Amino acid sequence: MAKVADKYLKVDPWAIIEEGFDTERNRVSESIFSLGNEYMGVRGYAEEGYSGDSLIGSYFNGLNEQLDIGNHYKGIIRSLRYMVNSVDWLHTRIAVDGEQLDLAKSKISDYVRKLDFRTGTYRREFVWHLENGKSLKLVFTRLVSMTMSHLGLQQVAFEPLNFSGSVDIIAGLDFNIIHEERGVSMWNPVRSGEQDGISAILASTINTGNKLFSSFTLKASQPIETARVEREKFIGQSFSLELTQGETAHFTKFAINCADSTSARSAEELWSEGLGLAVASLSLEEQAVLAEQEAYWNGIWETSDISIEGDPENQQGIRFCIFQLYQTYHGDHPGFNIGAKGLTGEVYRGLAFWDTESYCLPFYMFNNPKAAKSLLEFRYRTLPEAMQRAKDVDCEGACYPIATIDGTESCDLWQHSNLQLHVGTAVSFGIWHYVKNTGDKEFLFSKGVEMLIQISRFYATRGQWGQRTGEYGYFGVMGPDEFQLMVNNNCYINLMAKKSFEFALEAIQEMKEKAPSEFAELSAKVELREEELGDWSNKAEKMKIPVDKETGVYEEHDGFFDMPHIDIHSIPVTEFPLYSNWSYDRLYRYDMIKQPDVLMFMFLYSEQFTKEEKLANYEYYESRCIHESSLSPSIHSILASEIGKHEEAYNFFEFATRLDLDNYNRNTREGLHTTSIAAAWMNIVYGFGGMRSDGERLSFQPSLPERWTSYSFQVMYEGVLLKIVVNKDNVSLKAISGGSTEIIVYGQRIKVDASGTVLPLGEGMIAG
Amino acid sequence: MAKVADKYLKVDPWAIIEEGFDTERNRVSESIFSLGNEYMGVRGYAEEGYSGDSLIGSYFNGLNEQLDIGNHYKGIIRSLRYMVNSVDWLHTRIAVDGEQLDLAKSKISDYVRKLDFRTGTYRREFVWHLENGKSLKLVFTRLVSMTMSHLGLQQVAFEPLNFSGSVDIIAGLDFNIIHEERGVSMWNPVRSGEQDGISAILASTINTGNKLFSSFTLKASQPIETARVEREKFIGQSFSLELTQGETAHFTKFAINCADSTSARSAEELWSEGLGLAVASLSLEEQAVLAEQEAYWNGIWETSDISIEGDPENQQGIRFCIFQLYQTYHGDHPGFNIGAKGLTGEVYRGLAFWDTESYCLPFYMFNNPKAAKSLLEFRYRTLPEAMQRAKDVDCEGACYPIATIDGTESCDLWQHSNLQLHVGTAVSFGIWHYVKNTGDKEFLFSKGVEMLIQISRFYATRGQWGQRTGEYGYFGVMGPDEFQLMVNNNCYINLMAKKSFEFALEAIQEMKEKAPSEFAELSAKVELREEELGDWSNKAEKMKIPVDKETGVYEEHDGFFDMPHIDIHSIPVTEFPLYSNWSYDRLYRYDMIKQPDVLMFMFLYSEQFTKEEKLANYEYYESRCIHESSLSPSIHSILASEIGKHEEAYNFFEFATRLDLDNYNRNTREGLHTTSIAAAWMNIVYGFGGMRSDGERLSFQPSLPERWTSYSFQVMYEGVLLKIVVNKDNVSLKAISGGSTEIIVYGQRIKVDASGTVLPLGEGMIAG
Repeated sequence: MAKVADKYLKVDPWAIIEEGFDTERNRVSESIFSLGNEYMGVRGYAEEGYSGDSLIGSYFNGLNEQLDIGNHYKGIIRSLRYMVNSVDWLHTRIAVDGEQLDLAKSKISDYVRKLDFRTGTYRREFVWHLENGKSLKLVFTRLVSMTMSHLGLQQVAFEPLNFSGSVDIIAGLDFNIIHEERGVSMWNPVRSGEQDGISAILASTINTGNKLFSSFTLKASQPIETARVEREKFIGQSFSLELTQGETAHFTKFAINCADSTSARSAEELWSEGLGLAVASLSLEEQAVLAEQEAYWNGIWETSDISIEGDPENQQGIRFCIFQLYQTYHGDHPGFNIGAKGLTGEVYRGLAFWDTESYCLPFYMFNNPKAAKSLLEFRYRTLPEAMQRAKDVDCEGACYPIATIDGTESCDLWQHSNLQLHVGTAVSFGIWHYVKNTGDKEFLFSKGVEMLIQISRFYATRGQWGQRTGEYGYFGVMGPDEFQLMVNNNCYINLMAKKSFEFALEAIQEMKEKAPSEFAELSAKVELREEELGDWSNKAEKMKIPVDKETGVYEEHDGFFDMPHIDIHSIPVTEFPLYSNWSYDRLYRYDMIKQPDVLMFMFLYSEQFTKEEKLANYEYYESRCIHESSLSPSIHSILASEIGKHEEAYNFFEFATRLDLDNYNRNTREGLHTTSIAAAWMNIVYGFGGMRSDGERLSFQPSLPERWTSYSFQVMYEGVLLKIVVNKDNVSLKAISGGSTEIIVYGQRIKVDASGTVLPLGEGMIAG
Repeated sequence: MAKVADKYLKVDPWAIIEEGFDTERNRVSESIFSLGNEYMGVRGYAEEGYSGDSLIGSYFNGLNEQLDIGNHYKGIIRSLRYMVNSVDWLHTRIAVDGEQLDLAKSKISDYVRKLDFRTGTYRREFVWHLENGKSLKLVFTRLVSMTMSHLGLQQVAFEPLNFSGSVDIIAGLDFNIIHEERGVSMWNPVRSGEQDGISAILASTINTGNKLFSSFTLKASQPIETARVEREKFIGQSFSLELTQGETAHFTKFAINCADSTSARSAEELWSEGLGLAVASLSLEEQAVLAEQEAYWNGIWETSDISIEGDPENQQGIRFCIFQLYQTYHGDHPGFNIGAKGLTGEVYRGLAFWDTESYCLPFYMFNNPKAAKSLLEFRYRTLPEAMQRAKDVDCEGACYPIATIDGTESCDLWQHSNLQLHVGTAVSFGIWHYVKNTGDKEFLFSKGVEMLIQISRFYATRGQWGQRTGEYGYFGVMGPDEFQLMVNNNCYINLMAKKSFEFALEAIQEMKEKAPSEFAELSAKVELREEELGDWSNKAEKMKIPVDKETGVYEEHDGFFDMPHIDIHSIPVTEFPLYSNWSYDRLYRYDMIKQPDVLMFMFLYSEQFTKEEKLANYEYYESRCIHESSLSPSIHSILASEIGKHEEAYNFFEFATRLDLDNYNRNTREGLHTTSIAAAWMNIVYGFGGMRSDGERLSFQPSLPERWTSYSFQVMYEGVLLKIVVNKDNVSLKAISGGSTEIIVYGQRIKVDASGTVLPLGEGMIAG
């Protein structure tokens, strides 16, 4: 892999710290210093205005706009939905003696920025040296509340170092935000106004009519006189603070944002609702909000922390990952999903992919099962859209979209949206995985089985029979490995579809037995025919799973073994990323793969494959994999751990936790790799911890990277919070809460309770 | 095939005749009544203005505009060129007593329109019944001159049937023509003016700066007083004609158009040039122009006519085809090519495809070798663009575009432009075919070999080695059969590339021997390395040509034989065309083919395959072919004739000559299927005539469709014009001019001279 760290930020176990301001890195830092609370997210842009390169990004989960696409072929989408850049609710302008603060132009010193994982706050401070010789220290604090979804808090404090005087401020809400990809603001102003000290504005998206209410109130360390500033799509207040040398003055902005991404409410209704929330916020005290935020994060760290002794960089990295995952999603709001870049940038358009079920779901399942369930409920909620999509592509049942914000297919590359069939199997796998590890049969019977039936119908109508082999499979597909664009019988798809059929049949059988009347009702609702079950069973049985009997290597798709060979190490580093430097068609003509495909199903259905099979397939495919997907290295690391290639495992892990902190892919400027962040968590828990969650019981095979003294992680399993500590000698297991449970460690079934169990670290399990 | 004739036009051996005006069919007739002279083309629209559904289409060969396309992948085009809809030089407005003539609203009777193949003119007449009871007979005549490329002639004659009075006319040149696909006029006005009775206007295309000068002068049957009418992008003259009951008055418009599609000339230069031509046109007499036009067409029919006795519909059909082919292209202007719809509509954007070399070239080769050479010279002229395209797709040499107007790739579907590699092999085949049948070694050595070298370089760098088979071939391609979208080792491409390598090596060898100094010069120019020749030879030898040894059936591509089977006859007629009714991805997942692929190379390299092989492959592939390409049935007809399936041959032929006249594909409204028109010619000459032009000598295997009394056709072979007449008893062959030559008839080598030879019609050769 041609990936090199770009070390820049300070290492700290509980925070991200930037010392000094680097215009070149501004966008990267904007991404890293993003704040979010799953309801909304905001990039770490300079709220006071910045004339240099910056992406003022403010996003609301699910809030979307529509783009029409010219296409005249049936089955290829004609419009797509994307997460739209929304109100700049942090908007501030600061001037002293007529000189405007602008980090692109102003002279500053002592710049320090900190994102604190324990307090959930962002703080930026520096000294501004004015042209007239005055020096003013500024401290900007912000948070988006994890407990009050609509609330964003901003405080700016001023300390004049060598003068007394005044500072002129405009604080406002700006809907003139450019959606960078589209080049314009996608908002129509609807209403704005001021009452009871609340300044409010409401706008709606041009095409979808999604609405957003935004308001703010001001408090200050001294009485202030405000004057309304109003212009198109903007409302604000201007005021001055009197500053005394050596003393600090500040103002605080309480912003309330209220979004309607379904266009279900009228502007009037949303205005009332938003105003109600704003009025309620008048009684909020800044210190109380900060304290509540810190308490929330304390709770998170108590259940979800991963500690690493002896490796401060990865310690920081993994906590950053956990912090960002919770910021992006924690299941408080039904109907949300996880965009590939979370709420931190426009790239990938805020769309959710199969990453949700394949990469993110385990993190939530084992930390916050309610959030995991809520993610799966997103798929249930969007079943109607998936069923429409199946019709659009001449199939039955439900075809889950490869990329979506609202359930509709929103990937405008037909080769992906029409050929990548693996979201449905990921949903099916997700249901299976979730139910297996939580025992939540209520979910399975009330929603899961219905999805499984519609998913099975899709895979039973999209597949076809090989004319010569007589085997069933999928023709004209792209598997997870996006470097094989349109192939037949992609092994991953075939195997996952087979598993999906089998699980559907099992779940139906179980529901028939355990919840017969609910099943009868469901069966009538979906018009299930008995012969469908026979059909699925037959197709599962006759599914083509091509494997080379001699070597045990699964063939990624028909003909893969004859694909022209390329020694991936012969590709000059300057040619990466290949997407930018190779002709598009050339990417698809080698035995080179972009990311795990065969290895992916060996990870997901780990128990189905022997260690020898994993070794043979790992050696074949890893040597052909260029990891151009940020999701790739972690899966390889996890498998490398399992087959005893501990050094390789550590090498693949190396940038997992710090993918964005060290900007390995050189594109963190566009936003965080949010779903890859989940892979970092898996890399430690499934990789070094050796956890497997697809067997009878949860199992572990812990190993310890040589340079680490110890590490610990926690997982919630069947209602029991387990803490696992691994050091050079031992593996300690303990039930922190929820009673006791049985798990498997190094192949041995043990009971873990509050008193804890200590086992010796396995033979040869220190390496790296 | 689900194709049904829509009979509408009158049958006539030498003309297209429409009686009565049908608004529903207006666009279809506009296409069919198109005029052209290869320099320009104009649809048969109502020049007096028509408020109903119409496409005012006026096109100039090569005149193009640019469209930028959003794409960020390397190797996929970022802009394309298309033939732009240009000046309406026929623009006329006619009013009597304030009532405006408009066929969508006016009451008319006795409508007759005629396109005459012998005079090369278009004539339309009808009686206009005004609301005030007056009746006026109008006759519109137009032509575009085959001998004076810039000249278009229009005459409108008026005969008042029941009144005397006046008619008010505006005659003009209008650049406000909407390019229908883009929805706007793509022209910027540059200059307009009037001098010496010449009204002129010059405009340029917005993006490419292509320029077009247009002017007209008026003559009338009575003195007229004109008044200039000028508005944006328009210049015209208004005048009145005094009409006397029972007498005819007319005016004639001499339009001179002068196009610069290379943007090489300044507006000033083009203005002068155009004005010079316009001044010269002042001395033209209408009758002389008409006579010259007729004489030209007489000459064409003398050398290129196909006569069919006993089948008036096909007689009319084939003459329409020959007429339109000559109108579209006859090789008078270097740098022109043949768009898929000629100069008759916007669809396919005026772009030329491999159809040129594979379908059109034989017609020109055997009728007008100069034109054939000129077509090949288009490829030489655009070699630099093809070399740039090869670089763009990470290859060497020349990659000829799948669709082009100016040599640059202009197909915006990457799956076609990046995967369809068969234009280069078509060019190579074209050179080989042309040189073989004309003996034009001068062309081969001066231009052909250089193209062959660059073509070989492309195929030597785009191909790859199968990892298991060790064979050479092309991965990630789409063959001629566009229902197999992205496959490996398409048999057609592989075989054609092999042939292309072999021909390049032979031609180089021959040139080395016969023109050593020219070769040395060329070799230095293209920096040819000796090892390249070895490489090409090796790749040709190791080329993968997959064939089922048992059945003799060539496999269209790797894995085709296992593609899911569909009984194409089970597809409901209502689902055609499949492109409109099937999900895009679904088209590509069956053993169903759109058009000949394996059968295509069996036609092109006929001599390489035995009749048994052709039979086996025909039976396998024809039963899987839905002929969704209008180029498909003729190739099947030709092969069916060869293997003795005469009835099938006739069935496939049935709509070849009348594809547009009977609107079989229901899309003639968009323009004529110009390149398919060439296939109709091949269908008779190669099909029933059994001509083959890929062997040592030209050969024939004539058969006679049962319902025909006789037919005759002519071919120019090595400078000798041969006439072949086939009737129920005999095949008569005669050299009309050029001396004598040897050909093969029914396997027997015979000499044909001016005295002629008569052979009995072969056994079993009457069928159908």
